[in-house]
Amino acid sequence: DRAEPLAALWRTKQLEYTWLRSLMGEYEDFHRLTLDALGYSLAALKISGDGLADKLIGLYQRLDPYPEVVDVLTRLNEAGLRCAILSNGSPEMLDSAVESAGLGELLDQVISVDEIAVYKPHPSVYRLAAERLGLAASDICFMSSNAWDVAGAANFGFRVVWINRFGQPPEPLPGKPAGEITTLGELPQLLGVKSV
Amino acid sequence: DRAEPLAALWRTKQLEYTWLRSLMGEYEDFHRLTLDALGYSLAALKISGDGLADKLIGLYQRLDPYPEVVDVLTRLNEAGLRCAILSNGSPEMLDSAVESAGLGELLDQVISVDEIAVYKPHPSVYRLAAERLGLAASDICFMSSNAWDVAGAANFGFRVVWINRFGQPPEPLPGKPAGEITTLGELPQLLGVKSV
Repeated sequence: DRAEPLAALWRTKQLEYTWLRSLMGEYEDFHRLTLDALGYSLAALKISGDGLADKLIGLYQRLDPYPEVVDVLTRLNEAGLRCAILSNGSPEMLDSAVESAGLGELLDQVISVDEIAVYKPHPSVYRLAAERLGLAASDICFMSSNAWDVAGAANFGFRVVWINRFGQPPEPLPGKPAGEITTLGELPQLLGVKSV
Repeated sequence: DRAEPLAALWRTKQLEYTWLRSLMGEYEDFHRLTLDALGYSLAALKISGDGLADKLIGLYQRLDPYPEVVDVLTRLNEAGLRCAILSNGSPEMLDSAVESAGLGELLDQVISVDEIAVYKPHPSVYRLAAERLGLAASDICFMSSNAWDVAGAANFGFRVVWINRFGQPPEPLPGKPAGEITTLGELPQLLGVKSV
Protein backbone atom coordinates (compact mmCIF):
# COMPACT_ATOMS: atom_id res chain seq x y z
CA ASP A 1 0.00 0.00 0.00
CA ARG A 2 3.03 2.30 0.11
CA ALA A 3 4.01 1.61 -3.50
CA GLU A 4 1.76 4.21 -5.12
CA PRO A 5 2.64 7.20 -2.89
CA LEU A 6 6.32 6.23 -3.09
CA ALA A 7 6.28 6.03 -6.89
CA ALA A 8 4.45 9.38 -7.13
CA LEU A 9 6.80 11.21 -4.75
CA TRP A 10 9.88 9.62 -6.38
CA ARG A 11 8.82 10.89 -9.83
CA THR A 12 7.86 14.33 -8.47
CA LYS A 13 11.20 14.79 -6.72
CA GLN A 14 13.17 13.44 -9.68
CA LEU A 15 11.66 16.14 -11.92
CA GLU A 16 11.91 18.86 -9.25
CA TYR A 17 15.63 18.21 -8.92
CA THR A 18 16.14 18.53 -12.69
CA TRP A 19 14.41 21.93 -12.70
CA LEU A 20 15.97 23.23 -9.50
CA ARG A 21 19.51 22.19 -10.41
CA SER A 22 19.14 23.60 -13.92
CA LEU A 23 18.06 26.96 -12.45
CA MET A 24 20.89 26.86 -9.91
CA GLY A 25 23.45 25.96 -12.60
CA GLU A 26 24.37 22.83 -10.62
CA TYR A 27 23.95 19.92 -13.02
CA GLU A 28 24.30 16.32 -11.91
CA ASP A 29 23.30 13.49 -14.24
CA PHE A 30 19.86 11.89 -14.25
CA HIS A 31 21.02 8.65 -12.71
CA ARG A 32 22.32 10.55 -9.70
CA LEU A 33 19.11 12.61 -9.43
CA THR A 34 17.02 9.45 -9.66
CA LEU A 35 18.97 8.02 -6.71
CA ASP A 36 18.68 11.32 -4.80
CA ALA A 37 14.93 11.46 -5.37
CA LEU A 38 14.47 7.86 -4.21
CA GLY A 39 16.52 8.50 -1.07
CA TYR A 40 14.47 11.59 -0.22
CA SER A 41 11.17 9.82 -0.90
CA LEU A 42 11.99 6.79 1.25
CA ALA A 43 13.01 9.14 4.09
CA ALA A 44 9.96 11.41 3.74
CA LEU A 45 7.58 8.43 3.80
CA LYS A 46 9.62 6.70 6.52
CA ILE A 47 10.04 3.54 4.46
CA SER A 48 13.10 1.37 5.02
CA GLY A 49 14.27 -2.14 4.22
CA ASP A 50 17.47 -4.04 3.48
CA GLY A 51 18.64 -3.30 -0.04
CA LEU A 52 15.26 -1.73 -0.91
CA ALA A 53 16.73 1.29 -2.71
CA ASP A 54 19.01 -0.93 -4.83
CA LYS A 55 16.10 -3.20 -5.72
CA LEU A 56 13.89 -0.27 -6.78
CA ILE A 57 16.66 1.33 -8.86
CA GLY A 58 17.19 -2.05 -10.53
CA LEU A 59 13.51 -2.20 -11.51
CA TYR A 60 13.67 1.39 -12.83
CA GLN A 61 16.47 0.41 -15.22
CA ARG A 62 14.45 -2.38 -16.78
CA LEU A 63 11.18 -0.54 -17.52
CA ASP A 64 9.25 -2.17 -20.36
CA PRO A 65 8.18 -0.02 -23.32
CA TYR A 66 4.45 0.33 -24.03
CA PRO A 67 3.32 -2.63 -26.17
CA GLU A 68 2.76 -0.64 -29.39
CA VAL A 69 6.19 0.99 -29.47
CA VAL A 70 8.21 -1.51 -31.52
CA ASP A 71 5.50 -1.84 -34.17
CA VAL A 72 5.01 1.91 -34.54
CA LEU A 73 8.73 2.66 -34.77
CA THR A 74 9.08 -0.10 -37.38
CA ARG A 75 6.34 1.45 -39.53
CA LEU A 76 7.85 4.93 -39.26
CA ASN A 77 11.24 3.56 -40.29
CA GLU A 78 9.71 1.75 -43.27
CA ALA A 79 8.12 5.05 -44.30
CA GLY A 80 11.59 6.64 -44.36
CA LEU A 81 11.15 8.76 -41.24
CA ARG A 82 14.17 9.06 -38.96
CA CYS A 83 13.36 8.34 -35.30
CA ALA A 84 15.35 9.64 -32.36
CA ILE A 85 15.20 9.90 -28.58
CA LEU A 86 15.77 13.25 -26.83
CA SER A 87 15.91 12.54 -23.13
CA ASN A 88 16.90 13.81 -19.70
CA GLY A 89 18.31 10.32 -19.10
CA SER A 90 22.04 9.85 -18.74
CA PRO A 91 23.76 8.06 -21.66
CA GLU A 92 24.18 4.86 -19.62
CA MET A 93 20.50 4.82 -18.63
CA LEU A 94 19.43 5.37 -22.23
CA ASP A 95 21.76 2.69 -23.59
CA SER A 96 20.42 0.12 -21.19
CA ALA A 97 16.78 1.13 -21.74
CA VAL A 98 17.15 1.03 -25.54
CA GLU A 99 18.90 -2.31 -25.42
CA SER A 100 16.48 -3.99 -23.00
CA ALA A 101 13.54 -2.75 -25.10
CA GLY A 102 15.14 -3.94 -28.36
CA LEU A 103 14.88 -0.51 -30.02
CA GLY A 104 18.48 -0.03 -31.12
CA GLU A 105 17.96 -0.80 -34.83
CA LEU A 106 14.93 1.49 -35.02
CA LEU A 107 16.60 4.67 -33.79
CA ASP A 108 18.70 7.05 -35.86
CA GLN A 109 20.03 8.84 -32.77
CA VAL A 110 19.79 8.70 -29.00
CA ILE A 111 20.42 12.20 -27.65
CA SER A 112 20.96 12.89 -23.95
CA VAL A 113 20.92 16.30 -22.28
CA ASP A 114 24.07 15.17 -20.49
CA GLU A 115 26.43 16.79 -22.99
CA ILE A 116 24.96 20.27 -22.39
CA ALA A 117 24.44 19.80 -18.63
CA VAL A 118 20.98 21.35 -18.41
CA TYR A 119 17.56 19.69 -18.33
CA LYS A 120 14.26 20.11 -20.17
CA PRO A 121 12.46 22.46 -20.72
CA HIS A 122 15.51 24.73 -21.21
CA PRO A 123 15.52 25.68 -24.93
CA SER A 124 19.15 24.49 -25.27
CA VAL A 125 17.89 20.92 -24.98
CA TYR A 126 15.54 21.19 -27.94
CA ARG A 127 18.18 23.15 -29.89
CA LEU A 128 20.61 20.27 -29.36
CA ALA A 129 18.22 17.89 -31.10
CA ALA A 130 17.73 20.22 -34.07
CA GLU A 131 21.50 20.55 -34.44
CA ARG A 132 22.21 16.85 -34.10
CA LEU A 133 19.49 15.95 -36.60
CA GLY A 134 20.48 18.77 -38.99
CA LEU A 135 16.85 19.90 -39.24
CA ALA A 136 14.91 23.11 -38.71
CA ALA A 137 12.83 22.97 -35.52
CA SER A 138 9.62 23.16 -37.51
CA ASP A 139 10.61 20.01 -39.47
CA ILE A 140 10.79 17.94 -36.30
CA CYS A 141 7.76 16.15 -34.87
CA PHE A 142 8.34 15.74 -31.14
CA MET A 143 6.34 13.41 -28.88
CA SER A 144 6.09 13.44 -25.12
CA SER A 145 3.65 12.22 -22.51
CA ASN A 146 4.68 15.05 -20.16
CA ALA A 147 2.57 18.18 -20.64
CA TRP A 148 5.41 20.43 -19.45
CA ASP A 149 7.84 18.86 -21.97
CA VAL A 150 5.20 19.33 -24.68
CA ALA A 151 5.02 23.01 -23.72
CA GLY A 152 8.79 23.49 -23.75
CA ALA A 153 9.24 21.76 -27.10
CA ALA A 154 6.32 23.55 -28.77
CA ASN A 155 7.47 26.89 -27.39
CA PHE A 156 10.90 26.20 -28.91
CA GLY A 157 9.35 25.59 -32.31
CA PHE A 158 8.93 21.82 -32.74
CA ARG A 159 5.65 20.45 -34.03
CA VAL A 160 4.54 18.53 -30.97
CA VAL A 161 2.18 15.63 -30.36
CA TRP A 162 1.10 15.10 -26.76
CA ILE A 163 0.71 11.43 -25.85
CA ASN A 164 -1.89 11.98 -23.15
CA ARG A 165 -2.38 8.38 -21.99
CA PHE A 166 -4.19 9.23 -18.76
CA GLY A 167 -6.51 12.05 -19.82
CA GLN A 168 -4.64 14.80 -17.98
CA PRO A 169 -5.96 18.37 -18.36
CA PRO A 170 -3.71 20.70 -20.39
CA GLU A 171 -1.14 22.75 -18.44
CA PRO A 172 -1.45 26.55 -18.59
CA LEU A 173 2.04 27.02 -20.06
CA PRO A 174 3.18 28.67 -23.30
CA GLY A 175 3.67 26.33 -26.27
CA LYS A 176 0.67 24.35 -27.46
CA PRO A 177 0.74 20.88 -29.08
CA ALA A 178 -0.23 20.49 -32.72
CA GLY A 179 -1.99 17.23 -31.87
CA GLU A 180 -2.98 14.97 -29.00
CA ILE A 181 -3.23 11.17 -28.98
CA THR A 182 -3.77 8.57 -26.27
CA THR A 183 -1.31 5.91 -27.47
CA LEU A 184 1.58 5.90 -29.94
CA GLY A 185 -0.56 3.63 -32.13
CA GLU A 186 -2.40 6.71 -33.42
CA LEU A 187 0.81 8.36 -34.60
CA PRO A 188 1.34 6.78 -38.07
CA GLN A 189 -2.10 7.89 -39.23
CA LEU A 190 -1.53 11.39 -37.83
CA LEU A 191 1.73 11.57 -39.83
CA GLY A 192 0.12 10.18 -42.98
CA VAL A 193 2.05 6.90 -42.80
CA LYS A 194 0.13 3.97 -44.31
CA SER A 195 -0.51 0.78 -42.36
CA VAL A 196 1.73 -2.17 -43.20
CA ASP B 1 -12.61 16.62 2.16
CA ARG B 2 -11.26 18.03 -1.11
CA ALA B 3 -9.58 20.99 0.59
CA GLU B 4 -6.33 19.25 1.46
CA PRO B 5 -5.59 17.62 -1.93
CA LEU B 6 -6.61 20.87 -3.66
CA ALA B 7 -4.31 23.00 -1.49
CA ALA B 8 -1.42 20.57 -2.03
CA LEU B 9 -1.83 20.41 -5.83
CA TRP B 10 -2.32 24.19 -6.05
CA ARG B 11 0.96 24.82 -4.22
CA THR B 12 2.81 22.14 -6.23
CA LYS B 13 1.66 23.57 -9.56
CA GLN B 14 2.33 27.17 -8.50
CA LEU B 15 5.97 26.29 -7.82
CA GLU B 16 6.29 24.06 -10.90
CA TYR B 17 5.17 26.93 -13.12
CA THR B 18 7.77 29.27 -11.58
CA TRP B 19 10.53 26.77 -12.32
CA LEU B 20 9.30 25.74 -15.76
CA ARG B 21 8.69 29.29 -16.99
CA SER B 22 12.06 30.43 -15.63
CA LEU B 23 13.78 27.63 -17.57
CA MET B 24 11.76 28.42 -20.70
CA GLY B 25 12.52 32.15 -20.41
CA GLU B 26 8.77 32.86 -20.35
CA TYR B 27 8.16 34.89 -17.19
CA GLU B 28 4.67 35.81 -16.03
CA ASP B 29 4.13 37.33 -12.59
CA PHE B 30 3.31 35.29 -9.50
CA HIS B 31 -0.27 36.47 -9.29
CA ARG B 32 -0.89 35.12 -12.77
CA LEU B 33 0.85 31.81 -12.00
CA THR B 34 -1.16 31.46 -8.79
CA LEU B 35 -4.36 31.83 -10.83
CA ASP B 36 -3.05 29.41 -13.49
CA ALA B 37 -2.16 26.83 -10.83
CA LEU B 38 -5.57 27.11 -9.19
CA GLY B 39 -7.34 26.73 -12.53
CA TYR B 40 -5.31 23.62 -13.37
CA SER B 41 -5.84 22.10 -9.92
CA LEU B 42 -9.62 22.60 -9.94
CA ALA B 43 -9.78 21.01 -13.41
CA ALA B 44 -7.48 18.09 -12.50
CA LEU B 45 -9.50 17.29 -9.37
CA LYS B 46 -12.81 17.92 -11.17
CA ILE B 47 -13.92 20.52 -8.60
CA SER B 48 -16.27 23.30 -9.67
CA GLY B 49 -18.56 25.85 -8.08
CA ASP B 50 -19.91 29.35 -8.70
CA GLY B 51 -17.21 31.91 -7.96
CA LEU B 52 -15.09 29.27 -6.20
CA ALA B 53 -11.80 30.31 -7.84
CA ASP B 54 -12.36 33.98 -6.96
CA LYS B 55 -13.18 33.05 -3.36
CA LEU B 56 -10.03 30.93 -2.99
CA ILE B 57 -7.80 33.61 -4.52
CA GLY B 58 -9.34 36.13 -2.10
CA LEU B 59 -8.40 33.92 0.85
CA TYR B 60 -4.86 33.51 -0.52
CA GLN B 61 -4.38 37.28 -0.51
CA ARG B 62 -5.26 37.60 3.17
CA LEU B 63 -3.03 34.88 4.64
CA ASP B 64 -2.23 35.54 8.31
CA PRO B 65 1.41 35.58 9.39
CA TYR B 66 2.55 33.03 11.97
CA PRO B 67 1.83 34.38 15.48
CA GLU B 68 5.47 35.01 16.48
CA VAL B 69 6.37 37.10 13.41
CA VAL B 70 5.56 40.65 14.59
CA ASP B 71 7.31 40.14 17.93
CA VAL B 72 10.44 38.66 16.38
CA LEU B 73 10.75 41.36 13.70
CA THR B 74 10.29 44.02 16.39
CA ARG B 75 13.16 42.57 18.44
CA LEU B 76 15.44 42.34 15.41
CA ASN B 77 14.70 45.97 14.55
CA GLU B 78 15.41 47.06 18.12
CA ALA B 79 18.75 45.27 17.90
CA GLY B 80 19.60 47.36 14.83
CA LEU B 81 19.25 44.57 12.27
CA ARG B 82 17.66 45.52 8.95
CA CYS B 83 14.86 43.16 7.90
CA ALA B 84 13.74 42.59 4.33
CA ILE B 85 11.53 40.32 2.26
CA LEU B 86 12.88 38.60 -0.87
CA SER B 87 9.95 36.92 -2.56
CA ASN B 88 8.61 35.35 -5.73
CA GLY B 89 5.41 37.32 -5.06
CA SER B 90 4.41 40.14 -7.39
CA PRO B 91 4.74 43.66 -5.93
CA GLU B 92 0.95 43.99 -5.54
CA MET B 93 0.69 40.66 -3.69
CA LEU B 94 3.56 41.63 -1.38
CA ASP B 95 2.13 45.08 -0.67
CA SER B 96 -1.23 43.68 0.32
CA ALA B 97 0.31 40.86 2.38
CA VAL B 98 2.65 43.25 4.25
CA GLU B 99 -0.18 45.69 4.90
CA SER B 100 -2.73 43.13 6.08
CA ALA B 101 -0.11 41.58 8.40
CA GLY B 102 0.90 44.99 9.78
CA LEU B 103 4.60 44.51 8.95
CA GLY B 104 5.25 47.71 6.98
CA GLU B 105 7.12 49.60 9.69
CA LEU B 106 9.31 46.61 10.50
CA LEU B 107 10.74 46.07 7.02
CA ASP B 108 13.63 47.96 5.46
CA GLN B 109 12.87 46.64 1.97
CA VAL B 110 10.37 44.44 0.19
CA ILE B 111 12.08 42.95 -2.86
CA SER B 112 10.17 41.09 -5.57
CA VAL B 113 11.70 38.95 -8.31
CA ASP B 114 9.34 40.73 -10.68
CA GLU B 115 11.91 43.33 -11.76
CA ILE B 116 14.32 40.67 -13.03
CA ALA B 117 11.60 38.37 -14.44
CA VAL B 118 13.03 35.09 -13.18
CA TYR B 119 12.11 33.03 -10.12
CA LYS B 120 13.98 31.38 -7.26
CA PRO B 121 16.31 29.50 -7.07
CA HIS B 122 18.01 31.27 -10.01
CA PRO B 123 21.11 32.99 -8.57
CA SER B 124 20.02 36.35 -10.07
CA VAL B 125 17.28 36.50 -7.45
CA TYR B 126 19.64 36.24 -4.49
CA ARG B 127 22.10 38.63 -6.22
CA LEU B 128 19.29 41.19 -6.50
CA ALA B 129 18.86 41.18 -2.72
CA ALA B 130 22.61 41.61 -2.08
CA GLU B 131 22.66 44.55 -4.51
CA ARG B 132 19.56 46.21 -3.11
CA LEU B 133 20.80 45.85 0.47
CA GLY B 134 24.35 46.90 -0.42
CA LEU B 135 25.77 43.88 1.41
CA ALA B 136 28.09 41.00 0.62
CA ALA B 137 26.17 37.72 0.32
CA SER B 138 27.96 36.31 3.34
CA ASP B 139 26.72 39.25 5.48
CA ILE B 140 23.09 38.37 4.81
CA CYS B 141 21.14 35.91 6.97
CA PHE B 142 18.38 34.45 4.82
CA MET B 143 15.38 32.52 6.18
CA SER B 144 13.01 30.25 4.31
CA SER B 145 10.69 27.41 5.15
CA ASN B 146 11.22 25.91 1.68
CA ALA B 147 14.11 23.47 1.58
CA TRP B 148 14.75 24.18 -2.13
CA ASP B 149 14.90 27.95 -1.46
CA VAL B 150 17.30 27.28 1.43
CA ALA B 151 19.48 25.31 -1.00
CA GLY B 152 19.45 28.02 -3.67
CA ALA B 153 20.23 30.81 -1.20
CA ALA B 154 22.99 28.89 0.57
CA ASN B 155 24.51 27.82 -2.75
CA PHE B 156 24.59 31.50 -3.77
CA GLY B 157 26.48 32.40 -0.60
CA PHE B 158 23.95 33.64 1.97
CA ARG B 159 24.10 32.36 5.51
CA VAL B 160 20.81 30.50 5.65
CA VAL B 161 18.48 29.40 8.42
CA TRP B 162 15.90 26.78 7.47
CA ILE B 163 12.58 27.27 9.26
CA ASN B 164 11.56 23.62 9.18
CA ARG B 165 8.13 23.89 10.84
CA PHE B 166 6.90 20.45 9.82
CA GLY B 167 9.98 18.28 10.32
CA GLN B 168 10.68 17.73 6.63
CA PRO B 169 13.76 15.67 5.73
CA PRO B 170 16.58 17.67 4.08
CA GLU B 171 16.60 17.83 0.27
CA PRO B 172 19.61 16.33 -1.54
CA LEU B 173 20.51 19.62 -3.24
CA PRO B 174 23.72 21.68 -3.16
CA GLY B 175 23.78 24.52 -0.60
CA LYS B 176 23.39 23.58 3.05
CA PRO B 177 21.80 25.74 5.78
CA ALA B 178 23.96 27.14 8.57
CA GLY B 179 21.13 26.51 11.02
CA GLU B 180 17.70 24.95 11.36
CA ILE B 181 14.83 26.09 13.60
CA THR B 182 11.18 25.10 13.93
CA THR B 183 9.67 28.58 14.46
CA LEU B 184 10.90 32.13 13.92
CA GLY B 185 10.82 32.51 17.72
CA GLU B 186 14.20 30.73 17.90
CA LEU B 187 15.84 33.24 15.56
CA PRO B 188 16.80 36.09 17.95
CA GLN B 189 18.79 33.74 20.18
CA LEU B 190 20.48 32.17 17.13
CA LEU B 191 21.53 35.66 16.02
CA GLY B 192 22.69 36.66 19.47
CA VAL B 193 19.85 39.20 19.96
CA LYS B 194 18.83 39.57 23.62
CA SER B 195 15.24 39.12 24.74
CA VAL B 196 13.27 42.34 25.36
